[in-house]
Amino acid sequence: MTEPLTERNGRVAAARKLTRRAGRDAAGAFLAEGRQAVVEALEAGAAAEVFVTPTAAEVHRDLLAGAGVPVRLITDKAAAGLSETATPQGLVAVCPLRDVPAEALVQDPPQLAVALAELNDPGNAGTVLRTADACGAGAVVFGAGSADPFQGKTVRSSAGSLFHVDVVRSAALDVLVPAVQAAGVRVLAAAGDGEVGLDRAGADGLLTGPVLWLFGNEARGLDDALAGLADHRVRVPMRGRAESLNLAVAAGICLYATQLAQ
Amino acid sequence: MTEPLTERNGRVAAARKLTRRAGRDAAGAFLAEGRQAVVEALEAGAAAEVFVTPTAAEVHRDLLAGAGVPVRLITDKAAAGLSETATPQGLVAVCPLRDVPAEALVQDPPQLAVALAELNDPGNAGTVLRTADACGAGAVVFGAGSADPFQGKTVRSSAGSLFHVDVVRSAALDVLVPAVQAAGVRVLAAAGDGEVGLDRAGADGLLTGPVLWLFGNEARGLDDALAGLADHRVRVPMRGRAESLNLAVAAGICLYATQLAQ
Repeated sequence: MTEPLTERNGRVAAARKLTRRAGRDAAGAFLAEGRQAVVEALEAGAAAEVFVTPTAAEVHRDLLAGAGVPVRLITDKAAAGLSETATPQGLVAVCPLRDVPAEALVQDPPQLAVALAELNDPGNAGTVLRTADACGAGAVVFGAGSADPFQGKTVRSSAGSLFHVDVVRSAALDVLVPAVQAAGVRVLAAAGDGEVGLDRAGADGLLTGPVLWLFGNEARGLDDALAGLADHRVRVPMRGRAESLNLAVAAGICLYATQLAQ
Repeated sequence: MTEPLTERNGRVAAARKLTRRAGRDAAGAFLAEGRQAVVEALEAGAAAEVFVTPTAAEVHRDLLAGAGVPVRLITDKAAAGLSETATPQGLVAVCPLRDVPAEALVQDPPQLAVALAELNDPGNAGTVLRTADACGAGAVVFGAGSADPFQGKTVRSSAGSLFHVDVVRSAALDVLVPAVQAAGVRVLAAAGDGEVGLDRAGADGLLTGPVLWLFGNEARGLDDALAGLADHRVRVPMRGRAESLNLAVAAGICLYATQLAQ
């Protein structure tokens, strides 16, 4: 049995840098931690190598036997350094970071795409990715100033969807929106005070054809200027007393309604 | 100006006990922290007293002037002890804990109610409360083994909805479900492998009339025995590659569809 690599090993040290955005950007790679994320990364052919503690190697023996990429034993301390969670799972894959250029959305628009403007919370970002995937979206765009989709919490909360959907990062949405509109995409902005109710939008046929949904910041919503570029501002009608919906929930409702209409 | 109360003051020490479930249950009270929660608590007449640091008292002077309940200055250290967040906001209300007995749902069933079975995550719990409120639900039931709706993170993520909707705690759902069914309520279980699609359920009229939705654990879903008690097991149809939806998102889609049908 080989000796587990410590945190001083060059490969481990290089992987540790991927816990920070600057490190991910410099290396063009990110980490997928925990069984579910590693399974999804391997299935998608998105993993380059896997680090695992001896204990986790026993637990996940089935998974690692068919990994098809190098699997390296590391110490518990090394695993803690690669973890972005409070309780390291001792299993993490290094994945090449593949973000798609924004131009791809203009040249070949998917029937359904999502753009996130200044979305702050990494958990929300992953949840929206997961929902977009479930509803058949082809791409999720993270506008400049949004959470980094390749950080640990987003990777985990996407539950593998990060490996299914094209991801565009750091897009200038005020440039992208007119460009996709010129390519025939209807741009819908989710806004609590939108002039069209989501039910009305469905009945009026606004949810069919190539659609790009714009969602804003958790607290502030969408910037007025950006919302103004959209073809329609759509609200989720609410008859209760809550003033607004959680952003990921609102996005889920909008995307599900769009899936039904397509 | 009165001297701020320290953490050794009896009222502050009593309030500090409310950061733990046993303390909340013993005292019959809970804490609402931060401006939004305190505003909602005051508006709902649900706050008994407010603790505030001198700094926060300046920031929230407008709010506190019309509080209508005792406002007590406390030190920063005392405020940290009352906080369930990493960055204490220096503003917290003590609210009497009002949970509704499960029998109320049987005697006077609301048109829409939600029951959570073994929901673990307090943030999810608050998000579902907020969504239920937005969709006009009259009650949210937390089954035995679910997160405590009166813990800090749930209070915050409910964004005030905890003060709008009747909350039932620690309910035995296997007893409640047959009881509400006998009272004429249709019980729908959200299940990834449910036999009825949500769109079909709407078209078939299953979402109208008094409805109780059952949602399960984030990872394991609903217990088979409990799902088996429901009148129908309903799935959210998905055409993408994600295996499942985030629980709060799935609940949001189901509750929105139900609101539309009622």
